[in-house]
Amino acid sequence: MTLIKYPNGNRYIPKQAVNRQLAVKKKHDEVLFGHRGMALEDELNASNEYYRATEQAVVYKKPTPVQIVKVDYPKRAKAVIKEAYFRQPSTTDYNGVYQGRYLDFEAKETKNKKSFPLKNFHQHQIDHFSRCLLQQGICFVIVKFVSLQRLFLYPATQLIIHWNEQESTGHKSIALADFEKHGFEIDYAIQPTIPYLKAVDQLIMH
Amino acid sequence: MTLIKYPNGNRYIPKQAVNRQLAVKKKHDEVLFGHRGMALEDELNASNEYYRATEQAVVYKKPTPVQIVKVDYPKRAKAVIKEAYFRQPSTTDYNGVYQGRYLDFEAKETKNKKSFPLKNFHQHQIDHFSRCLLQQGICFVIVKFVSLQRLFLYPATQLIIHWNEQESTGHKSIALADFEKHGFEIDYAIQPTIPYLKAVDQLIMH
Repeated sequence: MTLIKYPNGNRYIPKQAVNRQLAVKKKHDEVLFGHRGMALEDELNASNEYYRATEQAVVYKKPTPVQIVKVDYPKRAKAVIKEAYFRQPSTTDYNGVYQGRYLDFEAKETKNKKSFPLKNFHQHQIDHFSRCLLQQGICFVIVKFVSLQRLFLYPATQLIIHWNEQESTGHKSIALADFEKHGFEIDYAIQPTIPYLKAVDQLIMH
Repeated sequence: MTLIKYPNGNRYIPKQAVNRQLAVKKKHDEVLFGHRGMALEDELNASNEYYRATEQAVVYKKPTPVQIVKVDYPKRAKAVIKEAYFRQPSTTDYNGVYQGRYLDFEAKETKNKKSFPLKNFHQHQIDHFSRCLLQQGICFVIVKFVSLQRLFLYPATQLIIHWNEQESTGHKSIALADFEKHGFEIDYAIQPTIPYLKAVDQLIMH
């Protein structure tokens, strides 16, 4: 495992990593499959934290958009939001910068074993990807087949093709074989849990 | 004024623009100074909407981060957040993509006439800028001197210098002259209200 150093010379060890390293001593397999109960979002947040700490990329999940209606300001306490509503996001969930490139992506899970249903996406996400691609952004989805424990980085360009063709072809999902052909498989690792930047490199080189 | 067309061939006219055009017929000066009552955030949101519609850039303000504690799901009605708290943001407010470049910025107003107080910034914003600059992001602040009705795009690199030197120099603010020297002044316009991409071009060329 590579040692990570902060600019101040201190070694950086995320809490999760410490726990994982202790676990490694116990049983190696337990660690590699330790992510099974972890939601994709948590795995990506931890991976992004690692990428930031090691100065490899700056990527964040955007906050959930909320329309705030009523706020209370109790004395000597912090403001409490008393009434608010979830809003429809206009964009995808993740974006950031990696070696001068703009990254933009969405993360999705499925329990299906053979295909990924397109109904997991929304028109506004497709539109957002199209706009970002026009600006030469690197756009993709990270799809996790939970039952298979397989992860793919899949180009937004391919997603858009399937999205636009679903009416004419009647195909409401993307086959696993298509992920194997046009996507880039990501193997779970210890640090970061989801080393997706390797797949981003492949996408850029492609 | 340039006509904007959507890919479907329809002409795009934002509501604000329609209102402004009507106003133009009444009195030109009223329009150019019509933004006086408009907060910088609204002006930037409208400008970003224009830049997206005209396919010049894809930039959004990030949602306010909120920690949601309690949600009610009334029958036949949408979910209501009943208890939530404001969280400290980890990043700056705006980011996006422009011609393959990653843009990252913060917007700030001041009523001061001669300088901009550094206390308007937080350590986490400075850290975030530093990380993004390492990844070759285009990082800056848009500062509005409200009393002077002057707007500047000011490079994050300069802000970081002033931030780090404030203890040793004792200068807790950045002088207007410094904005004039190291920043790029943005003139208010009709469409978009804040044509900051011109200043971004200058920053990149610099």
